[in-house]
Amino acid sequence: MTWIFNNDELDSVLAMKDCIATLERGYLDLANGIGGNRGRAEIVSPAGRDGTVYALKSMDGVHTPSGYASIRLNSDIIGWREVSGSTRREKIPAAPGDRYVGLVLLFSTENGEPLAIFPDGVVQRMRVGATSGLGLRHLARKDAATAAIIGSGWQAGAQAMAIVAERPVKRILCFSPNKANRESFARDMTARLGVEVVAAATVEDAIRDADIVACSTSALDPIIGHNHLRKGVHYSAIKPAEIAAEAINAIDRQTVHLRDNAPLVVRTHGVELAEDKKGALAPSARIDEKKMSELTDLLTGKAPGRQSESETTCFLNYSGIGYQFTMVGGLAFEKARAAGLGRELPTEWFTQVEHP
Amino acid sequence: MTWIFNNDELDSVLAMKDCIATLERGYLDLANGIGGNRGRAEIVSPAGRDGTVYALKSMDGVHTPSGYASIRLNSDIIGWREVSGSTRREKIPAAPGDRYVGLVLLFSTENGEPLAIFPDGVVQRMRVGATSGLGLRHLARKDAATAAIIGSGWQAGAQAMAIVAERPVKRILCFSPNKANRESFARDMTARLGVEVVAAATVEDAIRDADIVACSTSALDPIIGHNHLRKGVHYSAIKPAEIAAEAINAIDRQTVHLRDNAPLVVRTHGVELAEDKKGALAPSARIDEKKMSELTDLLTGKAPGRQSESETTCFLNYSGIGYQFTMVGGLAFEKARAAGLGRELPTEWFTQVEHP
Repeated sequence: MTWIFNNDELDSVLAMKDCIATLERGYLDLANGIGGNRGRAEIVSPAGRDGTVYALKSMDGVHTPSGYASIRLNSDIIGWREVSGSTRREKIPAAPGDRYVGLVLLFSTENGEPLAIFPDGVVQRMRVGATSGLGLRHLARKDAATAAIIGSGWQAGAQAMAIVAERPVKRILCFSPNKANRESFARDMTARLGVEVVAAATVEDAIRDADIVACSTSALDPIIGHNHLRKGVHYSAIKPAEIAAEAINAIDRQTVHLRDNAPLVVRTHGVELAEDKKGALAPSARIDEKKMSELTDLLTGKAPGRQSESETTCFLNYSGIGYQFTMVGGLAFEKARAAGLGRELPTEWFTQVEHP
Repeated sequence: MTWIFNNDELDSVLAMKDCIATLERGYLDLANGIGGNRGRAEIVSPAGRDGTVYALKSMDGVHTPSGYASIRLNSDIIGWREVSGSTRREKIPAAPGDRYVGLVLLFSTENGEPLAIFPDGVVQRMRVGATSGLGLRHLARKDAATAAIIGSGWQAGAQAMAIVAERPVKRILCFSPNKANRESFARDMTARLGVEVVAAATVEDAIRDADIVACSTSALDPIIGHNHLRKGVHYSAIKPAEIAAEAINAIDRQTVHLRDNAPLVVRTHGVELAEDKKGALAPSARIDEKKMSELTDLLTGKAPGRQSESETTCFLNYSGIGYQFTMVGGLAFEKARAAGLGRELPTEWFTQVEHP
């Protein structure tokens, strides 16, 4: 049988701590050459609507010890919008019912069969959050009590979960330019996490007392500048623009998710991205990833984590990889099936007798 | 609705002439930067069974003028076998019911929605055959009357269809080491194509009078050597090993599908491919693709096709591209829907409200 799951089902079974543990194992195997990853690729074309772009994105991963392989794909209509003076990249829910299109296909490495197909939303946020969690496990102060989240969207929630999973944080401040959004995030997350989550009116208010500052936005303009840095704080970003290059360069201990992980972008004729003007697509030329540790260096002990209470640290969790979907997607499949969730489709629909 | 089709349905609606016309349009748009292609990538890992390998392969394409984007993927268990002194790469049908796993996912570039999911088998053979057809349209003698097909498998049939679609061929000889296979191919293809298809006992018997020689095998060892070349003949290959480098170099007019199209292969620890020993994975270092025309050069007129009745020509149709599946997959979707075929699934299963 090939299983279809929906995001609600996966959300009900995926715990952040389990995702972090699964990814930790996955990254160690990746570091040892046991896991396999094919980097993110994107074909971008003019979409026909004013200034929007059609983007087909895919990324693959294989982890034979757990028996899973996966492809994650997105079929997106993308636009850009000015919000409070900052340019944001936004996916437009253009599919029927105003929906987004992102999928994970999970396969067995034992016999090749398609095990499951599910939307990528929940696994996507959990893998990003869990990866940031592994970073902060090694880089944030052990006694971190206050955290700031910049952003109030889907990804911001997973950052909050990861912080709470890894550190004894009592209070999280959330800044987002939209008052209603940050207040609703604060309410929802207080209920979900059991720690106090409070809306902050400015970035400065949010980060003033924070031991951890997690950016989680779609901004193409910097949020954390050099002047925001404070001793002892751990900073993380999920997009290249979020922490200014000058700030990154001034941070004592710099770690990147994976070096040389910029996506392969194929452009057709006439495509224009706001990122081009902002120089925000590729990691900034003004930082030097070669001097940074990678996440796997922290996990294997090749690079040390935080060395003092006062140093500043950062984790640049840019450009996820397909392999994260293999690990967290495999976990989601097992948990969902163990809980009796999902809808069965005949595997024959997705296999064939013809040698292709 | 998202449509599920099977290979029989697609086979019933896809005519080789239509596939050739669709691909011709596609290649012209690709040459003009209007079409987008992301090259083939493969992650290979030890599969756990004796000497076999698990391979996850994917390739993407986008063609906004027709409104289609696609991902083609394969989740394969691969082994190698000696057949008549030649090493063959073979996919093992290890999925439930002894089936292979290859899929095409088709999306709308208008709104991103998943339009269809179907096994790749029929589209796979038609796109390879149709591409060879475009090559021979420009390179084979216009009065070609006899053709040879080396191989009797799934792909060999499409080569025969393409030859008949493009040239007034009266007789096709088929060689395959297995007598029963070549005879059954001859019977089936005679019935399907309405031209005489005859089994030949040796490669030499097959090619003796042929104006077109189409190799269509899984061999890792050369089939056509320098000594086989004959004036006026058009040679084509779908695998790098099929025509020996010395033979290719001696051919008057050499054309390759696309230059720099070697797949990206990610290998995990301990994986061994028979291709490594044979040097058969990448295009041979002993040929010079840079000196060859590409298929698109023939289609745009940038490179001339056949210039005399006596010259030898070749078309190296190695390493297909995802974009072919976008074009032929889009055509298959339209034809199958027009014929009222397919099974509907709710698009909601493959979309989401969560901004991923």
